[in-house]
Amino acid sequence: MSKVGFIGLGIMGAPMAAHILKGGHALYVHDIKPLPADLAGQGAVTCGSGREVAQQADIVIIMVPDTPHVAAVLFDDGGVAQGLTSGKIVVDMSSISPIETKQFAFKINALGCDYLDAPVSGGEVGARAASLTIMVGGPERAFALVKPLFELMGKNITLVGGNGDGQTTKVANQIIVALIIEAVGEALLFAARMGADPAKVRQALMGGFAASRILEVHGERMINRTFEPGFRIELHQKDLNLALSSARAMGLSLPNTATAQELFNSCTAHGGKAWDHSALVRALEMMANYEIGAPVPQ
Amino acid sequence: MSKVGFIGLGIMGAPMAAHILKGGHALYVHDIKPLPADLAGQGAVTCGSGREVAQQADIVIIMVPDTPHVAAVLFDDGGVAQGLTSGKIVVDMSSISPIETKQFAFKINALGCDYLDAPVSGGEVGARAASLTIMVGGPERAFALVKPLFELMGKNITLVGGNGDGQTTKVANQIIVALIIEAVGEALLFAARMGADPAKVRQALMGGFAASRILEVHGERMINRTFEPGFRIELHQKDLNLALSSARAMGLSLPNTATAQELFNSCTAHGGKAWDHSALVRALEMMANYEIGAPVPQ
Repeated sequence: MSKVGFIGLGIMGAPMAAHILKGGHALYVHDIKPLPADLAGQGAVTCGSGREVAQQADIVIIMVPDTPHVAAVLFDDGGVAQGLTSGKIVVDMSSISPIETKQFAFKINALGCDYLDAPVSGGEVGARAASLTIMVGGPERAFALVKPLFELMGKNITLVGGNGDGQTTKVANQIIVALIIEAVGEALLFAARMGADPAKVRQALMGGFAASRILEVHGERMINRTFEPGFRIELHQKDLNLALSSARAMGLSLPNTATAQELFNSCTAHGGKAWDHSALVRALEMMANYEIGAPVPQ
Repeated sequence: MSKVGFIGLGIMGAPMAAHILKGGHALYVHDIKPLPADLAGQGAVTCGSGREVAQQADIVIIMVPDTPHVAAVLFDDGGVAQGLTSGKIVVDMSSISPIETKQFAFKINALGCDYLDAPVSGGEVGARAASLTIMVGGPERAFALVKPLFELMGKNITLVGGNGDGQTTKVANQIIVALIIEAVGEALLFAARMGADPAKVRQALMGGFAASRILEVHGERMINRTFEPGFRIELHQKDLNLALSSARAMGLSLPNTATAQELFNSCTAHGGKAWDHSALVRALEMMANYEIGAPVPQ
């Protein structure tokens, strides 16, 4: 059994931490908000700072919203770095910048500690069901030590490569998911506007090379107009921002990712930041002055 | 057994017609080029014009490159329309404009004949193996009569709706295929340029929501640099042109389809019109001055 620290007990972090506690590990937690009641009741130890968590635990897991939050948790006064001693492991499961992740790892390594970047996909449902996909970057020895904890939280767990590669894989995942949603949106809107039944078109396409999980799940959402999340547009905007800002730093052109981000921005302009990301099709529909399911203009 | 006409005996049409002949039907063929020797040897009857084919056959199948060719086969002097009599069926299996298809059907219906648009996917391999996907638009009674012939040529056969809907479905298919290729290109190029192993990233993504046949097949081509067709870029450019010209006529904005077409144009500028469509990633690579598999610039 390990001494595990967990910093960031939000919608994702709270159920993930609960799985670790149920796995029989000692759990030291910290958040800027009050501790969820069920965690405290099950024996989690509340700490007043990241430094205190790092002093108590051997493996410190972080699950916060974005790059600046990870930087603050690690390196601010009272942060994790001040409590680390050689041989401990920092595991960042947030989805943040791959480029800054490499810098964070470098600074943590200088303290004699290994660093793993281990972002997840699967959302709140996956966090609760312990079925998250976990994409890991970092040294194999640290991965081997932390793997039993990952297995308490997720199912599809891959060590992709060195530090940053976990975050890179997550960004690549979010690029593809956004762009297939956009592709299915263009195709189904085209089909509907041309007068075909989009449900029948979707069905016909499911048998061939155009098939995907996105066509199946998000295509159905576009046809049935069920845009409650699911995965909120504002979160996917954050992920595409990681893609576009990293790409800019590398001199890399991602034209369709850029367009998808603009379409999400248009959804937000219409009050849609909390719509499911499949509602990206609404931005296309607004441009076309036509909506899937509406009568075709004669 | 039916009397079947077949006009257009190219790379796709010749093996498709051969399957019909082997199915025991009488076959009347016409092409502007000489008849393939094996078809003649197996008993196909050569006709001097589309009109003659339509006079001899009850079901006339057309398989030619693009919209203007179908218009010529049907309505030029000596064309199919001049040979049709009430009750015959015209089946266009070419991939052409959904909008003009509706006009062609209207004119053929005026002669007392049903019309089916029945474009295919699966390429030369599918045509030879009789495993084509066939997306059909038109009246159910005609579909029921022609279905035994479709079953000699393909496997996944769907009546999507009325005339034009088959072509619309094919265009929707080609939009999605192009845009997933583009998405996989952006994601794998991003991953490689960030220093991750694109093969491991592809493997990690295959388990989740980013999974698709395209990531599997075309993603592997991008990593292994195997760009022999497959499906030629110049053919996909034709299909995206159908999408973009139809969309323009409808006032529909397809931003990522437009970008994919521009990227294909860039491939063509570099001598790539006969590259496999997965080579779209090369246009992204040229913009980035970096190629998947190359060492990452320091």
